Amino acid sequence: MGVGKTRFGAFADRDLRSLAVEAVAAALADAGLEAGAVEAFYLGNFAGPSFTGQSHLAPYVAGAAGITGVPATRYEAACASSGAAFHAAWQAVAAGIHDVVVVCGVEKMTSQPTARVAEILAMAGDVSAEAHPGATFPAIFAMIARRHMHQYGTTREQMAAVAVKNHANALTNPYAHLKKAITLEQALAGKPIAEPLTIYDCSLVSDGAAAVVLAARPNGVRVLGCAQTSDYVALEKKADITSLPAVKASAAKAYQMAGLSAREIDFAEVHDCFTIAEIIAMEELGFCAKGEGGPFAASLAMAVNRSGGLKAKGHPVGATGVAQIADVALQIRGEAHGWQLPKARVGLAQNLGGSGATSVVTILGAA
Amino acid sequence: MGVGKTRFGAFADRDLRSLAVEAVAAALADAGLEAGAVEAFYLGNFAGPSFTGQSHLAPYVAGAAGITGVPATRYEAACASSGAAFHAAWQAVAAGIHDVVVVCGVEKMTSQPTARVAEILAMAGDVSAEAHPGATFPAIFAMIARRHMHQYGTTREQMAAVAVKNHANALTNPYAHLKKAITLEQALAGKPIAEPLTIYDCSLVSDGAAAVVLAARPNGVRVLGCAQTSDYVALEKKADITSLPAVKASAAKAYQMAGLSAREIDFAEVHDCFTIAEIIAMEELGFCAKGEGGPFAASLAMAVNRSGGLKAKGHPVGATGVAQIADVALQIRGEAHGWQLPKARVGLAQNLGGSGATSVVTILGAA
Repeated sequence: MGVGKTRFGAFADRDLRSLAVEAVAAALADAGLEAGAVEAFYLGNFAGPSFTGQSHLAPYVAGAAGITGVPATRYEAACASSGAAFHAAWQAVAAGIHDVVVVCGVEKMTSQPTARVAEILAMAGDVSAEAHPGATFPAIFAMIARRHMHQYGTTREQMAAVAVKNHANALTNPYAHLKKAITLEQALAGKPIAEPLTIYDCSLVSDGAAAVVLAARPNGVRVLGCAQTSDYVALEKKADITSLPAVKASAAKAYQMAGLSAREIDFAEVHDCFTIAEIIAMEELGFCAKGEGGPFAASLAMAVNRSGGLKAKGHPVGATGVAQIADVALQIRGEAHGWQLPKARVGLAQNLGGSGATSVVTILGAA
Repeated sequence: MGVGKTRFGAFADRDLRSLAVEAVAAALADAGLEAGAVEAFYLGNFAGPSFTGQSHLAPYVAGAAGITGVPATRYEAACASSGAAFHAAWQAVAAGIHDVVVVCGVEKMTSQPTARVAEILAMAGDVSAEAHPGATFPAIFAMIARRHMHQYGTTREQMAAVAVKNHANALTNPYAHLKKAITLEQALAGKPIAEPLTIYDCSLVSDGAAAVVLAARPNGVRVLGCAQTSDYVALEKKADITSLPAVKASAAKAYQMAGLSAREIDFAEVHDCFTIAEIIAMEELGFCAKGEGGPFAASLAMAVNRSGGLKAKGHPVGATGVAQIADVALQIRGEAHGWQLPKARVGLAQNLGGSGATSVVTILGAA
């Protein structure tokens, strides 16, 4: 019924709560509702306690947004925290438990130094198996990229093409963090982070919030399908690190709910925490065959991450899942002013936790 | 359908995951189910990332328990984290979304030094309004106790009587952390923590886990009512700090769902994070009139915290909500071996977050 977002960026003068309250107020205003109409509050947040030193964040945010006396819980599923919050909220509304709920995703990351940010993000993986021996998230996705290059012939140019596209897309999104056009040559010559990934293959560390109002009576946009599933947290438990089985399974379930095939999706916001993740998402979501994600993504055949994606729109971790859904909803409503896609009847949002242990796929359509 | 618990205690050789997996396996065995039958996994955990350095805990625990390919999310609502997880799981089963789910609560606290534990627990309150100026949780509940003494004539002896009872109760609970009988004189002469609270007014810092299997077909125990609600996190926002409006409101809703009055509750497990909290719970749950919690609790007129409560059974924060529900279920099934209540047909579990910003009340009865 309503969507609200803050700009994504690095805001030294904003705290977590003020960002979340801004997004919630905007979503309620968009829905034409008062805070008193909200029957439950779902907060997606990955690591507020570690980033900001405050926990118990759901009533902490809700109270400041004027929402009290209702269930208010924080959902944590790493980078898929607000996707998981959305999934639970959607289940409750779809099952008739609540008529009007608010889902908010928020993260305030930039108040910590980079090394501490990396340490906090590493908690989304298996810390004793990965972070302790030195594998931060860029290193984990670098291994995945190397293996994908080895198995399928994926190239650094194809990954760089994803970065170039997402940087270009963000230029026209007024809520995006990074407004910087780059060329393929610049992307390839970026500062190495974890080979083969350069700085341009990695998403941003951002502050930001997004919120949606979900209601039994839709208003222009309807949830056609929504599915969440899980896999092992540790990479070492996976038979093939180039695959994201949880994404494939949750997509299959969401397509089934929606009665649609991948071919019928007009556009998608996918979880490009690293460019290789967008490439693999193309495969697991069924937009192309397994192994063809590199050429498919580089071909720009499909409208993917028109918002700029995590790469350039920004990636305030706990906000990302709801922000993707909000962006898909805006496109379907024809209200993505300045960055509207010509064809946006059915859109998909894909939110990933860690290196694939949580996946939430949501399909929205015009109501 | 099934309950499982670890012992509560200080276990230097156990990590968070092994505790949670032990409880989940016990609950599944009790229900006669395999892990493959579980359709969704709900994890209640307050501060695993801060206590143990690992996040993304729901799939991290679920995978090790043999549960993969299903929604797995961590619920955080401070000390009511697993009460909130239970509430969400119960909603999903009651609404027909899932047939069989597992809810697990876990916390591993004793690996951190006491000062750090206090700092982590303080994140359940409003950190900038309370912890930063120096109000740790014992200090917050000390203010609440002082005000309750002032307004209603509650005495230190009444608080001490709660401690004496809960210590005595834990002696026969094989899963309890602390096995130490105390006299009223000892309780009153305890080391001061935050006046008027002594060490004997404060619950324990514990490691532990508890799990339940919730299913559409009950097996001896049925959820008659379950309600969660919220209030402001900051104490300064409350009109009367001796009241817990969220407890009163969630209890009223749970009673209404169950079609029962407070008088029809045979026994209760309540959130005695401090003895004054048990006293106020008596009032807000309607077991006695407002202001009469002190004499009522001291009279031992009702079977409250037969398990030993948070005071002596222990308080691994994220485990507490599910542990209370598991203990109520065991009593109703007549399987509280050695600590069985004679009359246990209908029981209530009350789980509190922070100083009252989250409350979950659950009423169970014989199926």
